[in-house]
Amino acid sequence: MQQGQPIVIYIMGVSGTGKTTIGLHLAEETGLPFFDGDDFHSAYNRNKMASGKPLTDKDRYSWLEAIRSHVVDQLNTNSCIIACSSLKDRYRQMLAEGIESQTKWVFLHGSYNLILERMGKRTTHFMPTALLKSQFETLESPREALKIDIQNSPSDIVTQIKQAYICPSEFGVIGLGVMGKSLCRNVASKGIRLAMYNRHIPKTEENVAINFKNNYKELASTKAFDDLKAFVNSLQTPRKILLMVNAGATIDRVLSDLTPLLSQDDIIIDGGNSHYADTERRIQYLEEKQIHFIGCGVSGGEEGALKGPSMMPGGKKDAYKKIEKYLTKIAANDKDSKPCCTYIGKGGSGHFVKTIHNGIEYVEMQLLAEVYHIYRKMGKTASEIAAILSEWKSEVNSFLLEITIRILTTVEKDDFLINKILDKAENKGTGNWATIAAAELGVPTTLIASSLFARYISSFKDERIVLSQAYKKKEHNIKLDDNIILQAYKLARIINHHQGFQLLKEASNALDYQLNLSEIARIWTNGCIIRSDLMETLAPILEDNNNILINKDISNCITENKDDLTKLIIESISSELAIPCFSEALNYFNGITEENLPANLIQAQRDFFGAHTYQRNDDDSKNYYHSNWK
Amino acid sequence: MQQGQPIVIYIMGVSGTGKTTIGLHLAEETGLPFFDGDDFHSAYNRNKMASGKPLTDKDRYSWLEAIRSHVVDQLNTNSCIIACSSLKDRYRQMLAEGIESQTKWVFLHGSYNLILERMGKRTTHFMPTALLKSQFETLESPREALKIDIQNSPSDIVTQIKQAYICPSEFGVIGLGVMGKSLCRNVASKGIRLAMYNRHIPKTEENVAINFKNNYKELASTKAFDDLKAFVNSLQTPRKILLMVNAGATIDRVLSDLTPLLSQDDIIIDGGNSHYADTERRIQYLEEKQIHFIGCGVSGGEEGALKGPSMMPGGKKDAYKKIEKYLTKIAANDKDSKPCCTYIGKGGSGHFVKTIHNGIEYVEMQLLAEVYHIYRKMGKTASEIAAILSEWKSEVNSFLLEITIRILTTVEKDDFLINKILDKAENKGTGNWATIAAAELGVPTTLIASSLFARYISSFKDERIVLSQAYKKKEHNIKLDDNIILQAYKLARIINHHQGFQLLKEASNALDYQLNLSEIARIWTNGCIIRSDLMETLAPILEDNNNILINKDISNCITENKDDLTKLIIESISSELAIPCFSEALNYFNGITEENLPANLIQAQRDFFGAHTYQRNDDDSKNYYHSNWK
Repeated sequence: MQQGQPIVIYIMGVSGTGKTTIGLHLAEETGLPFFDGDDFHSAYNRNKMASGKPLTDKDRYSWLEAIRSHVVDQLNTNSCIIACSSLKDRYRQMLAEGIESQTKWVFLHGSYNLILERMGKRTTHFMPTALLKSQFETLESPREALKIDIQNSPSDIVTQIKQAYICPSEFGVIGLGVMGKSLCRNVASKGIRLAMYNRHIPKTEENVAINFKNNYKELASTKAFDDLKAFVNSLQTPRKILLMVNAGATIDRVLSDLTPLLSQDDIIIDGGNSHYADTERRIQYLEEKQIHFIGCGVSGGEEGALKGPSMMPGGKKDAYKKIEKYLTKIAANDKDSKPCCTYIGKGGSGHFVKTIHNGIEYVEMQLLAEVYHIYRKMGKTASEIAAILSEWKSEVNSFLLEITIRILTTVEKDDFLINKILDKAENKGTGNWATIAAAELGVPTTLIASSLFARYISSFKDERIVLSQAYKKKEHNIKLDDNIILQAYKLARIINHHQGFQLLKEASNALDYQLNLSEIARIWTNGCIIRSDLMETLAPILEDNNNILINKDISNCITENKDDLTKLIIESISSELAIPCFSEALNYFNGITEENLPANLIQAQRDFFGAHTYQRNDDDSKNYYHSNWK
Repeated sequence: MQQGQPIVIYIMGVSGTGKTTIGLHLAEETGLPFFDGDDFHSAYNRNKMASGKPLTDKDRYSWLEAIRSHVVDQLNTNSCIIACSSLKDRYRQMLAEGIESQTKWVFLHGSYNLILERMGKRTTHFMPTALLKSQFETLESPREALKIDIQNSPSDIVTQIKQAYICPSEFGVIGLGVMGKSLCRNVASKGIRLAMYNRHIPKTEENVAINFKNNYKELASTKAFDDLKAFVNSLQTPRKILLMVNAGATIDRVLSDLTPLLSQDDIIIDGGNSHYADTERRIQYLEEKQIHFIGCGVSGGEEGALKGPSMMPGGKKDAYKKIEKYLTKIAANDKDSKPCCTYIGKGGSGHFVKTIHNGIEYVEMQLLAEVYHIYRKMGKTASEIAAILSEWKSEVNSFLLEITIRILTTVEKDDFLINKILDKAENKGTGNWATIAAAELGVPTTLIASSLFARYISSFKDERIVLSQAYKKKEHNIKLDDNIILQAYKLARIINHHQGFQLLKEASNALDYQLNLSEIARIWTNGCIIRSDLMETLAPILEDNNNILINKDISNCITENKDDLTKLIIESISSELAIPCFSEALNYFNGITEENLPANLIQAQRDFFGAHTYQRNDDDSKNYYHSNWK
């Protein structure tokens, strides 16, 4: 259904130009009501025409007034479409009287011979063909009409009318869940003409789009649909459609419904957390249909989607260029007012980068959870912990730190809400994919794996209860200065970001994504869940795409804080606490800074039992050797 | 090519029974030379027959002697096939004279009318049809011949001859790499009639099978092929063929060459480290062709394959039953002389279990590497470390401990060989798959991941050298009693085995494999790389398929040794050593025995930014809640 000030579209032209046919098509595609002007003739006029006599102007005036009066009624509630020959300026003035600003003209024109030939095929029309000549003589071509040659196909004619008068939407969103709704409000508030669609499921999802539209002022001029075809037809071509539906099979289902309705060069943007391999597959599948597919990571949660998320679009650059102006309007801005949206690279790179973003996020969350765990075991209340973390903001501020403070101070009845929440962490798969990507690419992104597995350990709650009885822990008096914990936290976060960007670098090489790490860090400085002061620091450091550990400021920070991280781990494990992510940060650092690791023994063992051969440290040729160890 | 004492197969019968046709087919399938008896007739005999006169016995004696003499020559080097009518006992006696034990008879018989009809179709034969009647009168049916009705198809006739005389092989092996060769020697030494095949690649792989056969006495009665069709035809049906080729695309290539040569109900066994999902796919693909596919994990390395590996076959149980007697003969035996081979379960379960076996192996290797790392950093030489580890054998013996000791005492010139080996650990993918399986199944198999990533860290040697310069480590005086290290090692291995079997248990539920954990532990007590005293201990403990951590003996051991593991970690990280696997073992244990983990904070964060909802610890209904945290 079309929105805004109602209009009437008069489809005019001599008899036989197909006014009724076009009017009916247009009505079907837009959902607007259609009326045939001929139906408003008086019985007297009809008889006169049937007997072959042309109508006088007086005959016509009463007819035209009948039509106009009906249109005025319609415009009180809705737009409408009227087929009416309207051959003279005078007639048209009458039809538009009092509703001039809402009146749109479509003039269907064609040659006398073409129309005569077409009329010969019509048998049900009451007007004898003989009158055509008089119509041509009467016709005064209109000046302000949309003039369309009837040699165009009916569907082309309808498309031209829609483009001119129905004010097509620039941007469509499919899927009005938490993220989809927030993004719609964001898009509409940027003055982008938006069409929104949500499927119709009896009883569970009824009128979702219309109800949503009616609930928010900023959506007043959007169009709301639960009919997919009408939604698609409401969009200006090439269409730009953002999918905000569940990742996985749902995307494929939506695509199979959607693609038959699309035209060449339309662009679909998947804003969900899809697996990058699925995105590659979909790009190829849609390319065969000459439809573009952009896999766009969107981070920021509900609030970010509303106020401006960080956006990571990947796919064909040409296609990205056509949606860039929309995405950059929607996205958050960085400190220099540049949008937190950049072209990531080809194929599934946008979703790959989002996956690693989420992996880094898992670690950031786990480190805060371990900090909370330590403080809680030191006997501090949630609000005491929040107070300490508030002090940290000047040194290590981040979105996740801020919400942690707000969470820890949230009270429910007589207790902190955090104390009522079950300690079984769940996940939606991206941490899993990030871990798998690291395993497959041969990159030691150990903190993401550690954080993923920490969630898994937490999920075995029943087993933990049984084992906590079987292995009773002692009472411990944990002694850790706040500053030690802060400095350890600072260092562990550096290792996390180092590992995340190393994974992006290796993936970029392996998958030929040609990622710009600094630019990725920049679009992560605002809008997204892992935005932080540290990310601001890293964006310029990553300009050379190098390992951040060799940056002087970073290495100074690490060198200063390493002892604190070591102390935190010693005190924690001495107190029987699990701090897997802190531990792994230190072990990784001790490993990656170790010239001689004991992997020579592993190579020897592999050669011993499996003849897998090994390289030597006294042979730079990289030759492989096998020894007879028996 | 057929092996053993050479034989001559005489194909006898009246003219027109197809002796030459069958002889040529048989020669093609077996690679044996074929000779047509008619070619040994003198010119005199030929003329006589052409003029329609029957031969006298005297005519025949010189002819038969010519054939016999040729056969005797052949038998000096090879078996052969002769087509010869041999109608009378007397003739056959002459043909077999002096070579009776090597002479085999095939009697092709059919009715006079059938043969007459067939002869009517032959135009090139020099013997007039009129003589057929005299042949039937002359024919004395032989007693000891393989009598075959010529109404059978030629290929059926050839198969019957092969089954009777060529002594078909019971078991075939494709692929003569390190593991394939060792398994072949193992199979042959068990008295199983073996056929071996290796592809022919000019210059790089020529006569591999023949040369291999000639190098080992135990292979004297095997058959060696570089022609796949001849190899397949040498096998008794239903055929049992073990693939020992590279996992991945090679398997699919071999299957596409092999399957057109196979018959219904043949069984292919993949003994490589294939991914279990590939195995599932291949089972389904071959099922359509009514061919069985068994994915069989084989562990033991080169030596195990030779002396008896541990075998983990999975697939259809019916098909397994047909190969059970071979696999159980090849496999190692446990302490009770039961074979280290058991039916694992359906589908890809055999390869899945092998993948987890290898994951456990990664950890066992990494823990020894970390022990070696600590001792080396304490200033001990390889042989001093070996001496300490030798003392451990009474408490924690294992195959990997034994080979580590042997490796550490191996000297090259004036140094220990271990000191010359480059510390970049490589891998063949199974540790990676085990980590991915854990991530996908939601099971915290942290030590496998940690060991995999330790290998990855080691592979970044260039980066480690750079960073070891940027972050110079201090001098440390590491103080750890041998007993602390031993007890820590003991505990970490328990955690490794606990995690590995938990992963099998969860996978068994998720994939419906119905694994018998105790039986799996039993077949891992010998033959395989992770055989150990601990595995012997665990096999009975796992009989209830439960978590080993709740076993009393195990929990006592853990409780006693936990302080030592903590001390080892504290001393190691204080000395800037990377001991990721030891660290993770403790962190995992501290986590899984913790009733209240800080995952409630993670759930709160997820609900805060993504409205992902959470469960509560004061509501057993498992309902999900969402809070408005703003």
